[in-house]
Amino acid sequence: MVLILKQGTSLEDINAMVEEFNDMGFRVGVTNGIGCSILGLIGDTKSLDIGALELMDHVEKVLRVQEPYKLANKKFHPESTIVDVEGVKIGGGHFAVIAGPCSVESESQIISVARSVKASGARMLRGGAYKPRTSPYSFQGLEVEGLDLLLKAKAETGLPIVSEIMSPKLCEIFEEKVDVIQIGARNMQNFDLLKEVGKMSRPVVLKRGLSNSYEEWVMSAEYIMAGGNSNVILCERGIRTFESFTRNTLDISAIPAIKKMSHLPIIVDPSHAGGMSWMVESLALAAIAAGADGLMIEVHNDPQHALSDGQQSLNPKQFDDFMKKSFPLVQAFHPGM
Amino acid sequence: MVLILKQGTSLEDINAMVEEFNDMGFRVGVTNGIGCSILGLIGDTKSLDIGALELMDHVEKVLRVQEPYKLANKKFHPESTIVDVEGVKIGGGHFAVIAGPCSVESESQIISVARSVKASGARMLRGGAYKPRTSPYSFQGLEVEGLDLLLKAKAETGLPIVSEIMSPKLCEIFEEKVDVIQIGARNMQNFDLLKEVGKMSRPVVLKRGLSNSYEEWVMSAEYIMAGGNSNVILCERGIRTFESFTRNTLDISAIPAIKKMSHLPIIVDPSHAGGMSWMVESLALAAIAAGADGLMIEVHNDPQHALSDGQQSLNPKQFDDFMKKSFPLVQAFHPGM
Amino acid sequence: MVLILKQGTSLEDINAMVEEFNDMGFRVGVTNGIGCSILGLIGDTKSLDIGALELMDHVEKVLRVQEPYKLANKKFHPESTIVDVEGVKIGGGHFAVIAGPCSVESESQIISVARSVKASGARMLRGGAYKPRTSPYSFQGLEVEGLDLLLKAKAETGLPIVSEIMSPKLCEIFEEKVDVIQIGARNMQNFDLLKEVGKMSRPVVLKRGLSNSYEEWVMSAEYIMAGGNSNVILCERGIRTFESFTRNTLDISAIPAIKKMSHLPIIVDPSHAGGMSWMVESLALAAIAAGADGLMIEVHNDPQHALSDGQQSLNPKQFDDFMKKSFPLVQAFHPGM
Amino acid sequence: MVLILKQGTSLEDINAMVEEFNDMGFRVGVTNGIGCSILGLIGDTKSLDIGALELMDHVEKVLRVQEPYKLANKKFHPESTIVDVEGVKIGGGHFAVIAGPCSVESESQIISVARSVKASGARMLRGGAYKPRTSPYSFQGLEVEGLDLLLKAKAETGLPIVSEIMSPKLCEIFEEKVDVIQIGARNMQNFDLLKEVGKMSRPVVLKRGLSNSYEEWVMSAEYIMAGGNSNVILCERGIRTFESFTRNTLDISAIPAIKKMSHLPIIVDPSHAGGMSWMVESLALAAIAAGADGLMIEVHNDPQHALSDGQQSLNPKQFDDFMKKSFPLVQAFHPGM
Repeated sequence: MVLILKQGTSLEDINAMVEEFNDMGFRVGVTNGIGCSILGLIGDTKSLDIGALELMDHVEKVLRVQEPYKLANKKFHPESTIVDVEGVKIGGGHFAVIAGPCSVESESQIISVARSVKASGARMLRGGAYKPRTSPYSFQGLEVEGLDLLLKAKAETGLPIVSEIMSPKLCEIFEEKVDVIQIGARNMQNFDLLKEVGKMSRPVVLKRGLSNSYEEWVMSAEYIMAGGNSNVILCERGIRTFESFTRNTLDISAIPAIKKMSHLPIIVDPSHAGGMSWMVESLALAAIAAGADGLMIEVHNDPQHALSDGQQSLNPKQFDDFMKKSFPLVQAFHPGM
Repeated sequence: MVLILKQGTSLEDINAMVEEFNDMGFRVGVTNGIGCSILGLIGDTKSLDIGALELMDHVEKVLRVQEPYKLANKKFHPESTIVDVEGVKIGGGHFAVIAGPCSVESESQIISVARSVKASGARMLRGGAYKPRTSPYSFQGLEVEGLDLLLKAKAETGLPIVSEIMSPKLCEIFEEKVDVIQIGARNMQNFDLLKEVGKMSRPVVLKRGLSNSYEEWVMSAEYIMAGGNSNVILCERGIRTFESFTRNTLDISAIPAIKKMSHLPIIVDPSHAGGMSWMVESLALAAIAAGADGLMIEVHNDPQHALSDGQQSLNPKQFDDFMKKSFPLVQAFHPGM
Repeated sequence: MVLILKQGTSLEDINAMVEEFNDMGFRVGVTNGIGCSILGLIGDTKSLDIGALELMDHVEKVLRVQEPYKLANKKFHPESTIVDVEGVKIGGGHFAVIAGPCSVESESQIISVARSVKASGARMLRGGAYKPRTSPYSFQGLEVEGLDLLLKAKAETGLPIVSEIMSPKLCEIFEEKVDVIQIGARNMQNFDLLKEVGKMSRPVVLKRGLSNSYEEWVMSAEYIMAGGNSNVILCERGIRTFESFTRNTLDISAIPAIKKMSHLPIIVDPSHAGGMSWMVESLALAAIAAGADGLMIEVHNDPQHALSDGQQSLNPKQFDDFMKKSFPLVQAFHPGM
Repeated sequence: MVLILKQGTSLEDINAMVEEFNDMGFRVGVTNGIGCSILGLIGDTKSLDIGALELMDHVEKVLRVQEPYKLANKKFHPESTIVDVEGVKIGGGHFAVIAGPCSVESESQIISVARSVKASGARMLRGGAYKPRTSPYSFQGLEVEGLDLLLKAKAETGLPIVSEIMSPKLCEIFEEKVDVIQIGARNMQNFDLLKEVGKMSRPVVLKRGLSNSYEEWVMSAEYIMAGGNSNVILCERGIRTFESFTRNTLDISAIPAIKKMSHLPIIVDPSHAGGMSWMVESLALAAIAAGADGLMIEVHNDPQHALSDGQQSLNPKQFDDFMKKSFPLVQAFHPGM
């Protein structure tokens, strides 16, 4: 932590501050300049509140030096985390595609989609049973029945299943039925939910919030990890910007940035990012080339009649074409897959 | 709902579409132009998914005409809602200031702040017992003990209390102990929580999400109202933009905009918006002049040693000065108060 | 300037860096900690490039302490600048309203608007003769003829005139005919134009760019002042955010922020900020209450048939109503006016 | 153009409006519904101002159907434009890398960089002679001397040169000396400059503004094309968002979006987008995979001592490594190159 003092702070005042920080257990280095003096605080400053320090009488500005995250920090854990879901690996050189409909709508729908995405090369099946919808009048999901239909699809195809949890009340049922717990963008800072999911044994896909910084996103992963669950996969799904042509703006820089900050795997959801099916292929290929560890893609057997997100879903044929097109790229970036 | 058809759509295809929509219960008006044809759908289109319609073969673009909210819509409920909390009224010409610390820290702290803000003219007491913190290592609140301390402060001063709920599990305890339930910005689209709070009898302060549009905000109010709880107060607290000098960007236009869209009251939180105590007065006065129905201001007895948000809290003396300065403005905009 | 060094940087390396900076004329203070070492550079660091310093072998992070602006900096020029345009003063306690149409369209139009805004209390007349339009097919302004019509309106009413310059080629003609030079949002970082306008003798209204930070905005004022023209009025006119209900988002916090950073006056343009005439009054009152030194408001004799920006223009009656309503507020915030 | 009328508009009023539009030369289709009536205007509505129409007494909302750009519109010019600069082709399946320093600093610097980037496979040389700098105290470029040094580098290597123009006064000298005229992000809506460049014979690289939408960007290309210069290359270089980890946010979706809207080529500048040299490779590979027609990359012989943008420049070795790594990807996406 670095404190820039106001111009004209007297030596006496500086000494008083140094003493105060020493009493709190910090070592302090002082640089006295013409324009201003600078204090460098050495010690575990994670608990200090920058805002409160800035209120001190002689302080002009406070600058943090250390990152506020530890368990998710690459500096303290240099090797990449590999998340293993019944043998399907993501991270540390391993790449996998998760595919499936936005919402589980019926047994025939989910089984048909599961079969086709598996045939095209997907390694996990996604499907929403509890749906976060902007309108209370929109379809809210089949709930627990939806989870059971996902389990039937898993029984048919062997694909592990990924589904979104929206409430801490559902942790028990998700722990029992779902292979990978998804936390949606709107719940990225639902800290109560993060704490509960931290106690679960299932791996977690943590989507980035609509307007959350990389650091806030990693801090949310830190919440889950601090609870004991270290199998967190970060998922970039587009951020909210001024550009309204696309549903969101895919922040492709998140891939190299997260890989520098953290050892956790990062995957990309090109369906929500662009919000339009014709854009999925371009964005997905870009994500692979930028170094993503996986993709999560919406596939629906009949997008025109989907109960949600039809406009951004690929149909099975489009998904198959994409998988074929992406294959050499995945191999180039993940040799041995 | 208006559908713009692709150039060159044949009359046959148009007729087929009209028939399909008629079968779904809509009346359809057709405008055939040189450049393109336009279909106007008349009926209850709230359930139609724009995205799915845009996937139809001949559709170029779909435009919604009606707002997707009903209970919160000023068109269907022209008179302003007045929320009454034990005699303290907000909305419909009534104005009130809610003040108190970010977090409840101790009995002496909350009682001292409560007394001083009451003396300065505040009508309700705010205080966080469950705190949404970006870091799992930051102070998370006194939890139920904090609520009990708020009740003591209420017993001392008569001020109704406002506190943030973070989990549906806490609805019962909040229903019992808290006068006004606050939903924080990070939970504005925690739909599970919105639904549960909709079943409560307590009024709700619904903060705007960091990057949520006016319409999404009103839709979240609609969730609560659809559950049966119509006492919703919207609270603008700054949005996230590229400007990082301030913690958030206070969107002052939200006041006239919301008043045009909805009959619900809107208040402003200048503390979180600017994030710096020296800015609170300017922003709060602007909010009054723009027509806000109330303010929520952070006041702490000792901001330098606050456990959270010290840098944006006023001390009791600063708050008192502000209240004196704002009084003529409040009177000018709310005659009779 | 503060340099945070990488963990494990040796004492030798630190000494070598210190020597290098000493050779460049800086004094260096060193703080050696457990986690990291910190160098504090004292001297005129304005010319140092942060990015280049960050490329140095042992440097983890570079933090700037001093603001990069000097002439516009309140620290070096604590008293507020008062811009005086033929006796109309803005800043340092003086408040004035500038009003008029988006574009000058005809002699009768501009004279009729000038007369009515003067009668309502406006102190300067605005009107565009050269128009920055998104589309090459839109009305581009009457050009020099427009300036001459403004001069006629000035002759009739005595109101000084404000008009936007779009090209350095026009500096001579603007110097001759226009009282206050406006630089539009889209040209805020047209550095070539800023340099030329810096050589003019006329005061300048510098609008904030659509997505420029306070610091960049003040740096653009610094360009003009560095050229010798110190009469710069900053004008907040809304920034671009994710919210599309309004044309732009009025950043009301700019008023207290700029007043803390700089001695230059700041005015607000509520017409462009909201983009809708029914919102102008709320935003303008908020600006006065937040401490603005003036307003720039679009007024058109016949908004429905305006050649540009009709939807955000007040008609003369609406403007008169607003001026009457705002009068007590202006008096309260600017006693003696 | 579609006009949604207010509820309760009488048949008489509708007929009056239809007549008025007929008089203006438009055909009008009317759809009378229960909730509202809809008018569809057929004709050349490009000149109509949406804002002014929305001020009409009975109009609730106006929706545009046609794009406001014509010359740049893919609908009217389906085949891709190929820009040919002395045999180097960009667009329509042709891909090229433009590389070089941010600023031209000296003869030895620019010639050394030119030679090395040519050896690595770059096809054009970039270098700034007139520099847009946020601060008036930063290095502003070597100006015309810089252009002459670029010409020397061209004479040595045969690489066509790309350089940024900042003022209409310089059109003549750029027409004479520079092969491709660059318009920087800050000047994307400097309409005066766009008009002048439209009269030049040299191809233009038009960078996207920091917060400009795709449509505004294409409209700026339309300005240049309307002047007679149809060789416009669009360059995505990152937009401004809330995320401050990166200098800007690379909007990778711009590639598929622009390719759908326009026939013009689009290239990507990963150096300015990320603002950090270690991120360039990931972003550049992503751009190729998303379908970009080229790249513009900053390369400096000694980034630590660059006079501008050192932190985002590759050194020649890093650039060579990137080019080797990208080669198979370019070939996969542009067979035959």
